[in-house]
Order: sequence, then C-alpha cells, then structure tokens
Amino acid sequence: MAKVITFGEIMLRLSTPGYQRFVQAGSFEVTYGGGEANVACSLANYGASAAFVTKVPANPLGQAAINHLRRYGVDTSFILKGGERLGIYFLETGASQRPSKVVYDRKYASIAGVQPGEFDWARIFAGASWFHFTGITPALGENVAAVTLEAARAAKEMGLTVSCDLNYRKNLWTPEQARATMTQLMGYVDIAIGNEEDAEKVFGIKAAASDVTRGEINEEGYRQVARELLTRFNLQKVAITLRESFSAFDNGWSALLYDGREFYRSRRYQIHIVDRVGGGDAFAGGLIYAVTEGFAPAEALEFAVAASCLKHTIPGDFNHVTREEVMTLMRGDASGRVQR
Amino acid sequence: MAKVITFGEIMLRLSTPGYQRFVQAGSFEVTYGGGEANVACSLANYGASAAFVTKVPANPLGQAAINHLRRYGVDTSFILKGGERLGIYFLETGASQRPSKVVYDRKYASIAGVQPGEFDWARIFAGASWFHFTGITPALGENVAAVTLEAARAAKEMGLTVSCDLNYRKNLWTPEQARATMTQLMGYVDIAIGNEEDAEKVFGIKAAASDVTRGEINEEGYRQVARELLTRFNLQKVAITLRESFSAFDNGWSALLYDGREFYRSRRYQIHIVDRVGGGDAFAGGLIYAVTEGFAPAEALEFAVAASCLKHTIPGDFNHVTREEVMTLMRGDASGRVQR
Amino acid sequence: MAKVITFGEIMLRLSTPGYQRFVQAGSFEVTYGGGEANVACSLANYGASAAFVTKVPANPLGQAAINHLRRYGVDTSFILKGGERLGIYFLETGASQRPSKVVYDRKYASIAGVQPGEFDWARIFAGASWFHFTGITPALGENVAAVTLEAARAAKEMGLTVSCDLNYRKNLWTPEQARATMTQLMGYVDIAIGNEEDAEKVFGIKAAASDVTRGEINEEGYRQVARELLTRFNLQKVAITLRESFSAFDNGWSALLYDGREFYRSRRYQIHIVDRVGGGDAFAGGLIYAVTEGFAPAEALEFAVAASCLKHTIPGDFNHVTREEVMTLMRGDASGRVQR
Amino acid sequence: MAKVITFGEIMLRLSTPGYQRFVQAGSFEVTYGGGEANVACSLANYGASAAFVTKVPANPLGQAAINHLRRYGVDTSFILKGGERLGIYFLETGASQRPSKVVYDRKYASIAGVQPGEFDWARIFAGASWFHFTGITPALGENVAAVTLEAARAAKEMGLTVSCDLNYRKNLWTPEQARATMTQLMGYVDIAIGNEEDAEKVFGIKAAASDVTRGEINEEGYRQVARELLTRFNLQKVAITLRESFSAFDNGWSALLYDGREFYRSRRYQIHIVDRVGGGDAFAGGLIYAVTEGFAPAEALEFAVAASCLKHTIPGDFNHVTREEVMTLMRGDASGRVQR
Amino acid sequence: MAKVITFGEIMLRLSTPGYQRFVQAGSFEVTYGGGEANVACSLANYGASAAFVTKVPANPLGQAAINHLRRYGVDTSFILKGGERLGIYFLETGASQRPSKVVYDRKYASIAGVQPGEFDWARIFAGASWFHFTGITPALGENVAAVTLEAARAAKEMGLTVSCDLNYRKNLWTPEQARATMTQLMGYVDIAIGNEEDAEKVFGIKAAASDVTRGEINEEGYRQVARELLTRFNLQKVAITLRESFSAFDNGWSALLYDGREFYRSRRYQIHIVDRVGGGDAFAGGLIYAVTEGFAPAEALEFAVAASCLKHTIPGDFNHVTREEVMTLMRGDASGRVQR
Amino acid sequence: MAKVITFGEIMLRLSTPGYQRFVQAGSFEVTYGGGEANVACSLANYGASAAFVTKVPANPLGQAAINHLRRYGVDTSFILKGGERLGIYFLETGASQRPSKVVYDRKYASIAGVQPGEFDWARIFAGASWFHFTGITPALGENVAAVTLEAARAAKEMGLTVSCDLNYRKNLWTPEQARATMTQLMGYVDIAIGNEEDAEKVFGIKAAASDVTRGEINEEGYRQVARELLTRFNLQKVAITLRESFSAFDNGWSALLYDGREFYRSRRYQIHIVDRVGGGDAFAGGLIYAVTEGFAPAEALEFAVAASCLKHTIPGDFNHVTREEVMTLMRGDASGRVQR
Repeated sequence: MAKVITFGEIMLRLSTPGYQRFVQAGSFEVTYGGGEANVACSLANYGASAAFVTKVPANPLGQAAINHLRRYGVDTSFILKGGERLGIYFLETGASQRPSKVVYDRKYASIAGVQPGEFDWARIFAGASWFHFTGITPALGENVAAVTLEAARAAKEMGLTVSCDLNYRKNLWTPEQARATMTQLMGYVDIAIGNEEDAEKVFGIKAAASDVTRGEINEEGYRQVARELLTRFNLQKVAITLRESFSAFDNGWSALLYDGREFYRSRRYQIHIVDRVGGGDAFAGGLIYAVTEGFAPAEALEFAVAASCLKHTIPGDFNHVTREEVMTLMRGDASGRVQR
Repeated sequence: MAKVITFGEIMLRLSTPGYQRFVQAGSFEVTYGGGEANVACSLANYGASAAFVTKVPANPLGQAAINHLRRYGVDTSFILKGGERLGIYFLETGASQRPSKVVYDRKYASIAGVQPGEFDWARIFAGASWFHFTGITPALGENVAAVTLEAARAAKEMGLTVSCDLNYRKNLWTPEQARATMTQLMGYVDIAIGNEEDAEKVFGIKAAASDVTRGEINEEGYRQVARELLTRFNLQKVAITLRESFSAFDNGWSALLYDGREFYRSRRYQIHIVDRVGGGDAFAGGLIYAVTEGFAPAEALEFAVAASCLKHTIPGDFNHVTREEVMTLMRGDASGRVQR
Repeated sequence: MAKVITFGEIMLRLSTPGYQRFVQAGSFEVTYGGGEANVACSLANYGASAAFVTKVPANPLGQAAINHLRRYGVDTSFILKGGERLGIYFLETGASQRPSKVVYDRKYASIAGVQPGEFDWARIFAGASWFHFTGITPALGENVAAVTLEAARAAKEMGLTVSCDLNYRKNLWTPEQARATMTQLMGYVDIAIGNEEDAEKVFGIKAAASDVTRGEINEEGYRQVARELLTRFNLQKVAITLRESFSAFDNGWSALLYDGREFYRSRRYQIHIVDRVGGGDAFAGGLIYAVTEGFAPAEALEFAVAASCLKHTIPGDFNHVTREEVMTLMRGDASGRVQR
Repeated sequence: MAKVITFGEIMLRLSTPGYQRFVQAGSFEVTYGGGEANVACSLANYGASAAFVTKVPANPLGQAAINHLRRYGVDTSFILKGGERLGIYFLETGASQRPSKVVYDRKYASIAGVQPGEFDWARIFAGASWFHFTGITPALGENVAAVTLEAARAAKEMGLTVSCDLNYRKNLWTPEQARATMTQLMGYVDIAIGNEEDAEKVFGIKAAASDVTRGEINEEGYRQVARELLTRFNLQKVAITLRESFSAFDNGWSALLYDGREFYRSRRYQIHIVDRVGGGDAFAGGLIYAVTEGFAPAEALEFAVAASCLKHTIPGDFNHVTREEVMTLMRGDASGRVQR
Repeated sequence: MAKVITFGEIMLRLSTPGYQRFVQAGSFEVTYGGGEANVACSLANYGASAAFVTKVPANPLGQAAINHLRRYGVDTSFILKGGERLGIYFLETGASQRPSKVVYDRKYASIAGVQPGEFDWARIFAGASWFHFTGITPALGENVAAVTLEAARAAKEMGLTVSCDLNYRKNLWTPEQARATMTQLMGYVDIAIGNEEDAEKVFGIKAAASDVTRGEINEEGYRQVARELLTRFNLQKVAITLRESFSAFDNGWSALLYDGREFYRSRRYQIHIVDRVGGGDAFAGGLIYAVTEGFAPAEALEFAVAASCLKHTIPGDFNHVTREEVMTLMRGDASGRVQR
Repeated sequence: MAKVITFGEIMLRLSTPGYQRFVQAGSFEVTYGGGEANVACSLANYGASAAFVTKVPANPLGQAAINHLRRYGVDTSFILKGGERLGIYFLETGASQRPSKVVYDRKYASIAGVQPGEFDWARIFAGASWFHFTGITPALGENVAAVTLEAARAAKEMGLTVSCDLNYRKNLWTPEQARATMTQLMGYVDIAIGNEEDAEKVFGIKAAASDVTRGEINEEGYRQVARELLTRFNLQKVAITLRESFSAFDNGWSALLYDGREFYRSRRYQIHIVDRVGGGDAFAGGLIYAVTEGFAPAEALEFAVAASCLKHTIPGDFNHVTREEVMTLMRGDASGRVQR
C-alpha cells in the first residue's frame, strides 16, 4: 500500500448555516480543512496510508485541527506545534446566482511562519512513495516557498513521485510571483493538476476560446494547455479539471488527462451542489489513489472525477466517501437510488 | 367514514442533518416511521379513521413511537407492549449523484418476536372496512409471516378489503423466500401495489425493456406486469408506481392503475426531492383513501400520485398533507406559488 | 445621498426550519419583516439613508423588531411605541410542488390601530426626497388607509417622489375596497410597481392571454397594463415584475419598465429558490435606489431585477446584498463561482 | 378508571433558547400549553382518561396544538375549531437573580370568543367523574366566565367532582372582577387549590406574617387561609402550594392540604429549576389523580408535591413523568442517582 | 441626557455550545464584544446616548460587528474601516470546578494597527460629556496606547468626565509596561474602576490579607487600595468590584465605592452563573449611567452591582437589561419570581 | 511512556438535548463511549499511549465509533470488524430530583458475540505495560467473559499490570453470576477499583453503616471493604470512589486508596454536574496514568479524583482534560476563575 505525504496548511473553517450571509449568522459551523489536508483525508478514506505535514499553534484550536485529521485516519505524527495562530477561513455557501464567498484570515498562521530546516524531511519521507503539495502553500510566503522547495527536492531525491495541484490564489500572490516560484518547484514535479484557470494565471498558458464564466468549454484548447504543461516541465501526466459554472447550485464537472501519449476525457457530471469547497482536492486525492493502485489512465481519471463529483454533495472540506462508493459511481450508477 | 387497519413495524428513524454522512454527525434527527405506519398516518391526515397494529417495547422509546402515531391522529389502542427493543433505521439523505443510505438495525425488534395468537384480530377488525400490509412485515421472520397470514385471513373472513404493497426488501429475505410467503398471502389480497422492481423480485414478473437505473420506463412493459399480477392472484386492482431516478435530488414520479378492464396512467411529476423515504407509502395511503371515498379509478390514481409527490417535499417518513392540498395539486396547480 | 422614508408594518416572522410543516415543528426561526421595512433595509444596505415609520408595542418584541431594523442600518427614530401587539406571520417554506404557506396573525397589531395625526409627517419628511408605501398598508384598516393618505399627501406637498408597490392581499380586503382606496392614493404616486396580478385585482387592468399558474407570460399584455396604469394615474414610471412559477423551487424572474416613452425589458433569471418572501420588495428597493442614484432606466431596471434575484437566495425577508454584489450580477456574472 | 374533563385555553408557547433574552433570539422553541391543558396531560401520563375542552382556530397552528395534546394521550375529541387565532405566550427563562419573563399575546384567541351554548356539556361530561378548571379561564372575558359557569353547573348537576385552581392573573382582571366571578363559580367547587398569593388576591384572605418575596413562610398563616376557604365555600378539600423563591434557579417547594378535619403538610423539596412554568398545574394534576385513585390525604398530597417537584426539571409546560417516577420520589429517593 | 464615548476593540466572539470543550465543538455560537463596546451597549440599553469608537476591517465580519452594535442602539458612526482583520476570541464556558477558558486571536486586528491622528477626537467628543476606556486598549500596542492618550487628553481638554476600568490583561503586557502607560493615562482620569487584582498588578497596590482564589475578601484591605488609588491619581471616585469565586458556577459579587469622603459597600449577590464574561463591563456601564443620571453614590453603586449581577445571567458579552430591571433588583427583589 | 491496553465495548450514545425527556425529543446528540473506551481516551489525553480493543460492525456506525476514538488519540488498530450491530445506549440527563435515565440497547452487539481466539492477545500486549478492563465486559455474556479471562491471563503472563473496575451492572447479570466470573478474573488482577456499591453486589463485602441514597458515608466502613478486597484477592491496591448523591445536579465526590500499608483519603469536591456519565472511568483513567507516571499514592489518588471531578463538567462519556488542567485542580485551584 502506497504511503503518501502531503504538506500545507490546515485552517479552521467557519461557515454560516442554511445559506445565511455573514451579517445574519448567530452561529458558525466548525470544521477544518485546506488543500493538502483534504487530499490526505481522501487517501485515508480509500484505505491508503496518508500523512499530513504542517505546523499548528500549541493551543486547543491547533489540537482540534489535529484531532479532525486523526478522526478520519490521517497520520498526524509529523505535525509541529508552535507559532502564533491557526489560520481561519470564513465561508458563506452560495445559492443560485449568489456565489459562495470566502473571507480568509490566514495571515500570521503558524504554518506561514515555518523556516527551512524545521521539518525533518528525511524522516518524514522514509518509507513513503508519493509527495503532494499545491500552489497555495508556496504562496503563503517566501519562507514557506523555501520549505516547499526543500520538501520537493528531498522527495525527488528519495525517489518519491511528486504531484502538484497548481491552485492559483490571486489574494496570496501575483501571477509574476507565482510564476517565478512555481517554475522552480515544477522542476521536481511528476504530475501536475490544474483547473481551467491555473495554467493561464501561473504560467501564462491560455486555453483557446473558452469562457468559463459562461460555462463554455473548448476541449481542444485544454488539450493544448495540457500538452504545453507536460512538455515545458517534462511531466509524466497532466490533469485538468473542467468546471462549467451555470450557477452556485448547478455545475458541470469533468476532466482531461494527458500522459504524453494519449488524451483521456472523462464522463461529465451535472451536479446540484451541496458544498463545492474541496472539489478540486477530491479530484487530486482520487487521482493519486488510482495511480498508486495501478489503475489504467482512463480508469484513474474516471475514479478522480467520480470522487470529486461526490465531494460536491458532502458538507465540509473533506471527501467522506469510500473506494466502493466511488467505484459504483464511476461504473455508471448515478441514479441516486436509496442504498438499503 | 372508512376505518382502516394497518399492521407492521414502526422504527425509530435517526437521520443525519444537512446532508452529513454518518461519520460526520454530532446529532441525529429523531422521528418514527415504517411502511404501514406511514400509510396509517396518511389516512388519518385526510380525516379517515386509521389504526396501526404493532408491538413495541415497554420502555420510553416504545412510548415515543406510540406518541408519534397519536400525534398525527392514528389509533394506537391495539398496539402491544413487550419484547426486546424498538427497531431502528439510520438514514443519510443523499444529494445529487450520492444516494441516500439506510443502515437497518431492526433485528430482534419487539415486532419481530410476535407469535400467532398474540393479536386479537377479531377485536381489531371489528367495525373496520380495510386491512393493509406490506411485503416488509412477513419478511421480518417466519413467525411474523404467520401472524400476517393470520391477520389477512381474519380480515378476509370479516369482509374487509385487503391491500398489500409488495415492497421487496433484499436484506430481509431472498426472492425464493419472498415468493413462497407472498404467494400464500396474495390469496387474501384484493388490491396490490408495487414499484418498478417488486413484481420481478417477488414473483419473477419482469417488465420488458426498462432500465430503472437509467431512468427509462417502458409503459407497455408495466402494463403487462399489472395484467399478469391481477390475473395470477385474482385481484381487483393493481397499481404500479414508476420512479425515474435521475439523481438523488431529481426524480420523475408517476403511476399506473389497472382494474381488470382499463389502464389508467397518471400525470407525471418532476420532483426536486427533500425526503424520498415514505414516498411509496404515501402513494398507498392516497390510493386507499381515494378508493374508500369512492373516487373514480382515474381520480383515485391521480390523488395517490399527487399525495406521494408532495411527500417527497416533507422531511420524515410521514406525509403531512391534507386532502385539500392533494386535491389542489391533482387539479393541476403545481406552480408552488405562495399560499397566503 | 437620497433619504427615503417608508411606512408600513413590521411583523415577527416565525418560520419552520428545514422544510418542516407547521405540525412537525419543535422550533421556529425568528426574524422580522414586512413590505416597506424590507425596502428600507435594501436601501440601507446599498448605503442610502432610509427610515422606516411604523408603530410597535412597548414590549420586548416591539423592541426586537426595532433592533432588527437598526442592525441593518435603518433609521428607526420615527417609530412609535404603543398599541396592543406585534403582528406575526408564520411561514412554511415550500419545496418542489408544495407551495410555501403563510399564516397571518396580524390583526390587532399596533400599526393596525394608528389614527390620523399620530405621526408628525412634516418632521418625518423633513430633508427626505422619497416616500414609499405598498398596497398592504392601507389594507390594514380604514384608519391605516387614512394615515397612509395623510402621509402620501404630505410627501407630495413637501416635494418628495412617491412610489407605491400595489401588492394586493386578498385576505386583507376585497378588490372593490382596494380599488376605492388605492385610486385615491394613486393621486399622489409618481412611480407604481406591480406584479403580474396586482393591476388586475386592484384596478381591473388585465394582461391579455397570460396564465401565471402555468408560467406563461405574454409580454405584450403586460405592456398594455403598464401603459394603462401610467396613463390612468398620470405616473412617471410603471414597473411590472414577471414571475414564472414552475415550482416552489424554480422560478423565472424578470421585469418590465415603462416611462411613458419606452419599454424596457430586463434580463430573465432562472432561480433555484432559497427564500422567496421579500423578492418583490427587493425589486422595489433596488429600483428606488437606482433611480435616486441617477441610473438610466434600462440600468435601473436591471439593478432592480438583479437585486431581487439575489434576494431569492437569502433566508429571511431582508435582502442582505451590497451595491457591488448587485452590479456584478447585473453586468452578467451569474456563474455563482466562489468569490475568494 | 376515572375520566377527567378540563376546560380552558391552550396557547402556542414560544421560548428563547439557552437563557437568551427576547432581543437576542434567532429562534424560539415551540411547544403548547396552558393551565388546564397541562393538568390533562399530567393525568394522561399517569394512565388516567383525560379530555381537554377548548376552541382553537381552524388553521395549522390550531391543529398543531391539538396534535400536541394527542401526542401525550389527551382526548381532544371535544375541541371546537373556529375563531380568530391561537393565543401565544412568549417566555424568557430566568436565571439566578433574573426572573423569567412572560409576554402574553392571548387576546382575541378563539377560546376568548366562545359563547354560552357552544359546548355540549351534557355530551362532554357523559361518563366523566371529575371536572377541573382554573381561575385563568373565567378571566379571559365575561363570555368565557359565563361558559365556565355553564360547565361547572352542568358538572355539578351530573354528579362530577369539581376542582378549581384559583390561579389569579393580574394582567387579565382586577381583584374585584375576580372576586365577583370566582365567588359565583366556587358555589360548584368541591376542591380548591391555591398558591401563596391567590386566596388574598381573589378573596382577600391573607396569610398572616409571610413575605413570599423573601422566601419566608408562616405555616400557621396558611392554615388559616385553608380553613377560611373551606368554610366560606363549603369545600371538601383545600390545597395550598408553598413556593419559596430564593432565585430564578432555586426554590423551596411544598404544600398543605386541609380536608376539614386535619391539616397535612408535605415534605419540602429544594429544587434547582430547569423550567418552572406549569409547576402548579403539575400539582393539581397529581392531586386529582391521587384522589381519584383513592390515595389517603397525606399520600395524595405527597404525590402531588413530588409530581410538581419533578415538573420543575422538565422543559415545556407539560409534566412528562410516569406514576412510578412520582412514587419513587415521594417514597424518599431524591438522590438523583442514574437509573439504568 | 448624557452622551458617552467609549473607545477600544470589538472582537468576534466564538463560543462552544452547551459546556463543550474546544476539541468537541461542531459549531460555535457567534456574537461580538469587548470591554468598551460592552459598556456602550449597557448605556444604550438604559436609554443613554452612547457611541463606540474603534476600527474594523472593511469586510463582512467588520460589518457584522458594526451591525451588532447598531442592533443594540450604539452609535457606530465614528468607527473606521480598514486594516487587516477583526480580532477574535474563542470561549469555552466553564462549569463547576472547570474554569472558563479564553483563547485570544486578537493580534494584527485592525484596531491594533491604528495610529495617532486617525481619529478626529474633536469631532467625536463634540457634544459628549463622558469618555470611557479600559486598560485593555492601551495594552494592544504602543501605537494604540498613544491613540488612547490622545483621546484621554482631548476628552479632558473638552471638559468630559473620563473613566477608566483598569482591567489588567497579563497576556497583553507586563506589569511594568502596564504601570508606565497607565500611570500616564491616569493623569486624565476622574473615575477609576478595578477588580480585586488590577490595582496590584498595574500599580503594585495590594489589598492586605485577601486570597481571591479562596473566595476570601478582606474589606479593609480593599478600602486601603481605593484610598491609595484616589490619592495617588487625584481621582473623584474609585470603585472596586469584589468577586468571590467559589466555582465556575457560583460566585459572590459585590463592590466598594470611595469618593474621597465616604466608603460605600454594596449589597452582595450570590450568583449562579450563565455567562460571566462582561460582568465587569456591566458594572462600569451601570456606574457611568447612574452617575450621569445623578444618583447618589450609594445608589449609583447599588445600580452598578445589580446591573452586573444580572449580566451574569445572560449569554454573550452584552448586558441586555433595562433600567427598570436593574432598579427592581437593586430595590431588593432578587426572588426571581416569574414576571408575567 | 507506558502503553495501556483496555478491552470492552464502545457504544453509540444517543442523548436528549437540554434536559428533554425521551418522549419530547426531536433530535439526539451523538457521541460514543463505554467504560474501557473512556479510560483509554483519558490516558491518550494525558499523553499516554493507549489502545482500545473491541469488535464493531463493518458498517458506517462501527466506523464512526472508531473515528471517535482516533479523534482523541486512541490507538484503534486492534479493533475487529464484523458481527451484527453496534450497541447503543440512550441517555436522558437528569436534573435536580429527577435522575438521569439510561435505556440500554446493547444486546446482540458485535462485541457480545466475540469468541475466545478471535483476538491475538500476544500481538496486542506486545510492548504494553498495563491491561485494564471493567466488570461490564465479562457481564456481556459467557463468551465475552471467556475472552476477558483469556486476555487477563495473557496480560499477566506477559508481565503487564492488570487493573479492574468492578462496575456491577444489575441489568446484565445477577450477583451470583457476577461473583462466580469476577472471582475467577480477580486472580489476575493487581489493582481493583470500585464504587460504593460494587464490592457488596459482586463479592458480598458490605460497608458498615452507610446509606448512599441519603448521601451518608461511613469512611471506616469503606476502609474495611478495601482491606477485605485487597486481602481476599491479594491485590496491590484498592481504590474506592465515594459518591454522595444529593440530587442529579449536586454530588459530593471523593475517594479512598489502600495499598496494603496505608489508607489515603482524597480531597472532597462538591460538584454541580453537567454530565455524570463516565465519572468513574475518568477516575480509573486518572489513577492508571498517575501510577504509571510514578506518582506517590496520595498524589495518584488526588490526580484521579481531580480528573474525575472535571469529567462531571464535560458533556459526553470522554474526559477531555489535559494533565495540566488536572494538576491545577489537584493543587487546589477550584475557584473556576476564567483562564485567559
């Protein structure tokens, strides 16, 4: 069984209940999440061995974040304690024409203060076969970018497969900053994942003739993006998720995989959304799992897309589905009939 | 006014709130329900006289189940107290491509331990005009099947109309067991109700060329099923509900009625679902009510389908709608405009 | 910045949670609202100066209603305290084919007991530029109609623009009563707003060949209605909202504006509804704001329709959206993509 | 088994959760209650036959009130439907030095509009052995007082025992009004129940040297009150509950019974309160039950006091305890040890 | 009517429901509060004019904090928008031997970044008669201390009465830092308020022979503290609150007032606590109100103590009580009897 | 660091919110617990290594129980999956004179079906130093008693310290059955823990002259009990917890420890209870931790009593406290003052 290491931030997630706006809320629903933590949870759900590496404050909130990971089977033994605070993100879940709104309060988080040398990567990667990170983590600060680079380099040297979800965040850095840092990191990456905007924002690789705000997708354009990413960074695989946003409730969801030889296009799901956050991470978690399990590329892609389709139906960042549930969906039963 | 007796199990229903999965839940919503109890509640809502017969443990949970029935006007005076426990079912409400999931914990329930002779059917049926049961009850055990047979026979002898909702449950018995027991029971039945799978699973009567997991319905196939059921068991009426499962949220819903002379096909509703459990029972409750009220077959069918359409919009097993609300919908106002 | 005065009733709103019916509810969600109060809140959200004039009882519930208005920035300094009780409305939110149901308990409310002379309109309108009321307020009783007339006349004399949302409520008065009173009031009105039924119910002006319970809209018919309203009452502008009710969940929503010269037809939104109550008030609030801000007629109409579209996605009567959020939608981004 | 009839008002009770004040509340807890309804529920819990007579509006809230009574086993078959509205009371549960606060909104309730002749008392009292009412009901209006008189007279004529809980409510009538009406009603009463203030407020019979706001009780003073009440109205029994209010959380609770021969003084409970509303009604319910069951006076008193002690630990107006639970407490086990 | 200005921080308060510990919580209750904001709300509740001055971020959380103040009648027109984030404090409410636990996450809050000159004190204090701040605000940073000094000096110059609640917070600064800054600020203060520890921690003025962790209070010791504070800083009045902590549930609560001539010792309350946070602020709010209303010193002290006693029974930071409710308690009715 | 193994049942715990009785509940709070699971969680909280051994069904509820243990740091790697169902217990939390009520539904649980040989005790105990079980586990059935014996024997042979909390449960077995089985098990036990009733019920060893239902404790009597237990079973230590039940809210709590040489009597806590379930397990967990950490007997006893005192203030079965929190209390700070 593969052992996967993911590195990044886990935040306290505070969301308003029942489609309330922030100014209305008398309570917040509490959970914890973050790109790479979400991926680790996906993997643990499927039965893989997954450890999440981060730094949280030595207070009850840091402990609660750890407990949340443990609860769902993620190995938390490499998590450091210290620093100032746990990052927070506030979420209003959107509805129909009203978009979901995220207010980040993640600055000064413990993970944003880590320095090169704090993590013992040799010990962390011992016995592991895969390392995953996202473009969010190096965007947390130059120091965190340096630590990410340290990790990616160590992973590569120790023979791990390295995957990266580009995940451009415009409120964390500029395209220029992103390009400089991510280009360096891509030197250690084997598998890249991006959504319909990332490649353009980070590397200036634009899909021809698509307008995502209108829900139009030009598949050929995305093939070009995948081809260029794979070539430029000498990758094994590039996956691109294709979200068609018709409204905050209704999205089309599918993906594309390119392995340098062939293009694979997944089935397309028309999703009525419960909670869209973590959808991309569920894709990454599904893809990593399927690849480590030796699925053929087309099956790996279908597993990843079906897994992330299911994520959209579950509240919270984490994707609480089993391997069997994903397999049932990818094999074609999307009827939603009661399972007794 | 007709007096209807239904017999079966009432369970504690524990459901996760807000589309949570079981592993996430910090609370369960509590209600009570079960096939024949749901039918009794429907009837009581419309103003009919309905008694539900069962056995519950002599503890506060058994009392709470009785109270739930009383609250909605069901006569509980024939319910026995004793036995080991109240059956439970745990429910995760599905969303979009994720199906609802039911975990049953009903074994060893008080009702599953009843023996022939425990119920005084002559007293129970005195003054009643209708007896209803489902295929779930005899599936609870050979002893319960024997009690059901005892009831059906007594009802028939006392001149009641007997209806049965086939309701095959694969986790309770095998098709072979079901066929042996149900064939015997059908000897006392006047009106049979089934969904798109029951006739095949229980009696091997298959609708030609339909694939319910794809939402395709071949009406002619279901006509054949109805015809064969009516003929084989010498029934007065056969009703078949037709669910098209596009997703856990979106279903098509309609039904077919055959009275040995004519086929009636109902209006078809496109439902966005709140709670799908009890939908079939709401159909049965609506049909029994409409027949006892002397509705013409086409109207009776429309009443039953409209009633069960509304059930899908109400949380819990019970269908909390009035006769007037059903009539408004069956007469064509499905616009959902605010009633002030 | 314009200062707008609105006059009417604010009620305690008690709604069942999670699509429960009244007979199921163990708790009610508490908020406060009412036609003109909702308009005032919309205006305050956009940054306008808005005061709401009413009378509430001198008890903690009256205070809570005031606090709710203050919370969202509405000037409550003209509100009188006294009288018998706070009006209440009970709400069951509908779903799919089941309509929302409102039970009013507003009789004997403090506002229903006001007498001419209680409000010092000269003081209230000092410095204000706009007065808004709805057809609900004069329907509360002859005394309230007299007070409304007193207000409208004073507003006109003091040079304010006067707007009126016709809002016919059949459980408050008959069409004959409405016509008599509203005809008198229209003498002071500059801008009238109505939905697809109001003009017919109040003034007998019927749109040709539309059947709103079937979701069909004949635009030409509504143009005639607007034309006739404008001419008959010598209005500056007439706006008509066009709701297509496909179900309690799914509505089409658009509007028409006529300024005596040109007809403007808005973009049409297909909404999946969270809370439909207050949708019309959000339109009025949006229109008043846009007009006072000097938007061109077409833009004013689009602002009003986008604003009310967003209202349908927010629980409660009030429309908690900012000017920027409305502008984003009216400019065409209805994709509902997460705003980070 | 005795059959008891009670007559009065049932109200919608809306209470703030978790010690919130009205101005803070975003939800209200919903239940239903009222003096005589609470007594009927107590009796039904113990296994007695109890019917509650009232009038509720023909709307879903009236139905919900009926359902609440049915749920707990009260016979609702004599309840009339019609009139304007369901009475409401709003409750803030107090804490420590902060008293509970009740805001009544019961005026214009359906029951307040009943007229003599509306209830068929001969049919209602057929087969019954006891009639109970409180001083609240005749205080609802002269018409309701007339109906109460009608009922008391019919009960007396038909040989029922009649009990009355004096229950003076200063916001419903003046002492003078109360005295006039209650004196007339007492002519039909066999058993009177009062708290430490009622006799004084209604009949001017004052206990010597007690100051209830200081928690001091002069037992001899209350004996005089009981003696005078019994003599003046030729009663069989007089019971007086003695509440020592140390704070909203901590009360002493005991009672006195006089049967014309002997005085009985109950055990005294020191209660840490969960919900104090309905405490007196639980005493009345316990006393009526114990008397109808033939308990000796001292035991009847202890049953009533223990029953009402337990009520203080249960949220809502109704006293959800069994005969066995009361017996266990009255026999001396007040240790609160877990019952497994 | 006096107009009072308070200056400080308002934080988002996130508390676990139902005595849960942080690691258990699946939701947080949301409110907003902070020392000086709490005082402003108290004053507004009593009908005084109160404005709260602070800086909050220009995001929905900052807006929600403003809305919370507005809801309860506080003037928010002087609040600045900008800076990084809204301070947060996480609260676990204690029980019995388990203390309440507060985790602060207030660093980098917008208010912590204010600079001298940002607030226009002349405009803010125009027409005001009182300025209040606490020792928490200058502890937020040297810049905030400078702004506080700026404000205190301006207030003094403009003839306002200045009050200061010493409120030493050990996690914000050291006793040495506190002494340096507070000594400077005290030069502008007229009325000082402290609890049993503040004078010692901030100014090294220790009460003889009291051990607050044992609930022992030596009144003479506190008289000396008051005398020394008044003399050293040439104050008009010194008030000292005296909390006897028997457990997280049970506290004794009283206070002492010294005006340079006489010592006043208040009534002592034995409180069973609902929410202890904001108790001291409620005392300050009550004292300021009573002094501005011209109460004699003994009455002013009793008003302040009664007000803060009531605060302990209300969830949240704010003290939602009216002047009348405080008066009732200070006049001696602490019986907690239901107010109907 | 010690590694502790505990063996027993973990149940789904369903409790009514807010002091509701079962018949009132519309939701249940969900957690998981059981005697030995609770002990394991205590140990994990303090930083010890603790594994819990049991068998749960291979369904989402079994998984949720495992997740609950993992969340709080308990090693779940030895838990078997299979069998029929997860045991359940329903809990009504008592108040004042009303006792808490537990309804067990644990029969046919997976753990109740385990057979000797299913657990690989040699592997489980490898590297461990302590084994703990309670008298509940062998009471689940003869097969479970046999497995417990198997475990105790293996533990003894492998040199582990064995502790047993007698925990007599009258609804699981008779005193005679308990005595036979427990006598055999005691042959392997080093440290026994009992409450005030266990020794009498299980071994017929009665404390002289105490009446626990009256809250009276005769210390000398309990000394005799401890002496006799230690002697009869050749134990190292005997601990006896002493609960004085004044009401469901107020208990006295202390304990006694005897090590064959000296008697230690702990400090006594007067607790106002939030959740009493698991109090005894928290004592056992504290004692085991303190002994493994090498605390002197008097300190170990104080740690255990302080730990279990704190448990009474936390909802749920588990004791969510840190070592530091326990130490603070045992050192004497029971003032409950806010920790900032």
